[in-house]
Amino acid sequence: MPDPLITLTTDFGEDSPYVAAMKGSILSINPSARLLDLSHQVPPQDVRHAAFFLATALPYFPAGVIHVVVVDPGVGSARAVLYVAGGGQHLLVPDNGCWTLLAGSWSRPPMVRRLAEPAYWRHPVSATFHGRDIFAPAASWLSRSLDPACLGPVVTEWVQLEDRPPTVAADAIHGEVVFVDHFGNLITNVSAALLAGLGERPLSFQVGEQVVQRQVRTYADAEPGQLVALFSSSGMLEFAVAQGNAARRLQMGIGTAVLVRA
Amino acid sequence: MPDPLITLTTDFGEDSPYVAAMKGSILSINPSARLLDLSHQVPPQDVRHAAFFLATALPYFPAGVIHVVVVDPGVGSARAVLYVAGGGQHLLVPDNGCWTLLAGSWSRPPMVRRLAEPAYWRHPVSATFHGRDIFAPAASWLSRSLDPACLGPVVTEWVQLEDRPPTVAADAIHGEVVFVDHFGNLITNVSAALLAGLGERPLSFQVGEQVVQRQVRTYADAEPGQLVALFSSSGMLEFAVAQGNAARRLQMGIGTAVLVRA
Amino acid sequence: MPDPLITLTTDFGEDSPYVAAMKGSILSINPSARLLDLSHQVPPQDVRHAAFFLATALPYFPAGVIHVVVVDPGVGSARAVLYVAGGGQHLLVPDNGCWTLLAGSWSRPPMVRRLAEPAYWRHPVSATFHGRDIFAPAASWLSRSLDPACLGPVVTEWVQLEDRPPTVAADAIHGEVVFVDHFGNLITNVSAALLAGLGERPLSFQVGEQVVQRQVRTYADAEPGQLVALFSSSGMLEFAVAQGNAARRLQMGIGTAVLVRA
Repeated sequence: MPDPLITLTTDFGEDSPYVAAMKGSILSINPSARLLDLSHQVPPQDVRHAAFFLATALPYFPAGVIHVVVVDPGVGSARAVLYVAGGGQHLLVPDNGCWTLLAGSWSRPPMVRRLAEPAYWRHPVSATFHGRDIFAPAASWLSRSLDPACLGPVVTEWVQLEDRPPTVAADAIHGEVVFVDHFGNLITNVSAALLAGLGERPLSFQVGEQVVQRQVRTYADAEPGQLVALFSSSGMLEFAVAQGNAARRLQMGIGTAVLVRA
Repeated sequence: MPDPLITLTTDFGEDSPYVAAMKGSILSINPSARLLDLSHQVPPQDVRHAAFFLATALPYFPAGVIHVVVVDPGVGSARAVLYVAGGGQHLLVPDNGCWTLLAGSWSRPPMVRRLAEPAYWRHPVSATFHGRDIFAPAASWLSRSLDPACLGPVVTEWVQLEDRPPTVAADAIHGEVVFVDHFGNLITNVSAALLAGLGERPLSFQVGEQVVQRQVRTYADAEPGQLVALFSSSGMLEFAVAQGNAARRLQMGIGTAVLVRA
Repeated sequence: MPDPLITLTTDFGEDSPYVAAMKGSILSINPSARLLDLSHQVPPQDVRHAAFFLATALPYFPAGVIHVVVVDPGVGSARAVLYVAGGGQHLLVPDNGCWTLLAGSWSRPPMVRRLAEPAYWRHPVSATFHGRDIFAPAASWLSRSLDPACLGPVVTEWVQLEDRPPTVAADAIHGEVVFVDHFGNLITNVSAALLAGLGERPLSFQVGEQVVQRQVRTYADAEPGQLVALFSSSGMLEFAVAQGNAARRLQMGIGTAVLVRA
């Protein structure tokens, strides 16, 4: 049995000492925990970015990993901290919807608990840093095989991330850009499955006012600098500039309208 | 017994190969060492930033961890490399004061040694990269249970970080901003304990020329965009813009004067 | 025996979920693998930067480590994915030359295989993310002691990084800047050994149009702000501004001509 694994996803950056303090807080309860950074570069307080990040990355993890997610503009307010078990994963998340996009891919409903048992927190609990004082200790106790039931009661309501699915007509799909990755690729909420519903007809693509002339299978099929449509590694329609940065070139980003016509 | 843990804090960034070379240097001496990144985003050669970082993060770690800190503008000069044991922690640091703010919270004086035994260094020792050639090997030997006395002789003098504590009068405290975090929050050197000394009277806050109208318990108590005073997660007076960036909005940073009046 | 170690070097950044997905992909095959980030800040698709990074960092690692390198502008094209064994290291790399600079320091020719056995890949294989679907699973299988021969056939040809060595005359060496590090130091392709060939005469240095007046042993020997020549920690001629940023000050970077005269 390898030592238990705890992953960390935050918007803390690495210039500040907050990630380090969380790591110390975990290790002070379970010195054997294996810590794994997923990202500390989520844009500050960007719950939607975190939601896409988790939905794209966590399905690739084996069962039994504990994922700590602290993108938490509501820290110190009445918002709950949740323990979520689903899809084989264990999450500690603020109740702000950052995990509900991920949960959409789970075959069974999650088990959700609201953290309510201060015995598993670090004291005094800061009003501004629950990552260190609540999320990290709770995760560390779980990694020591604490029964999740000890953390707090089951809840059946939680904040859902507002979702604006694409609108689909017989010959067109209206969607939007939902993520811009590190390469400037514009990833949309239009899935390959949805596009398949338009049938075998040739498709035309538009992002904002920009018509995208060409669809390719992979970046290397495009000329350097060419703007193309393709399917992302998660099976979503994506617009990219080969060996370039589409977001910067087009000055587009999250929320830009996307139109596909048959 | 979990494998020994070595943390790394540097100003090397991650675009350069220096952090990777240090990791290799450690593992080549102790392949079982567990490596933990704290930060490689300390601003280049900013000893004061490193000092605040260490003082804020390291107290949360369990005893027995080995912390390697390489923010070292004096590399290659006559400045010493120190082994410091205190507060249950083991540090390898350049003798530039980066650890003395942290040591202020220790209940007992530290044991300090000057690294002087080349048998525990990597050879040839580069004039510009002691992180790889001195700090990393020494840490790795310690993680193999080397007696610290083997590293070099005890010293009783070292560089102290220059400290400018707040000035306190009966009805006012003059302090300054000492850290700007990843969110742009302005953290001061005025502690909650110091403020308590002003008594129960209502307080007024000023950072630079800017009057701060409101004090809150946590970010979520403020309106989005509002500039507020609050206590940081380390118990220091802090100025923040809720869901915004105070440093950018006010164009203020380290050294900005802070005034609290009763 | 410590658990097997897999390092990761990519140009994915940490704001995107791609590194996290790779980590999950590795752990889902070998939950005991120890993961070690080397860098995810290689500039996008910059194979030359990756080559310098690997050549500078990997020689410090102990034998037996598995290094996964995904800086891969050709993803999805016919470019091969290679398993390379050399210098005691195991690499999984795209066949774009990113590893051949490193291999120049190996005393024996490498053993190279082309990944061709889909049984050790993740399915379906995305056209745009071989890091997650090919590199990561193959590395993870190797960490479970899979015989490398299972991955695919031996190959004897591969892409070589184009190399422009310095030109050497009796009294002068013409080279160029080949790397700019996080501190803005300009690292050249002129080695200490090459300079020694100019004999004991005093040397003059020029980078671009800028004459460099002074050679020092280490940064601390220069006045703050002074532009100096010195040898890098890898034994290459380097130009630096003490406590400053030479690349920014001089507006120079990779490819800038360098001239040394005896």
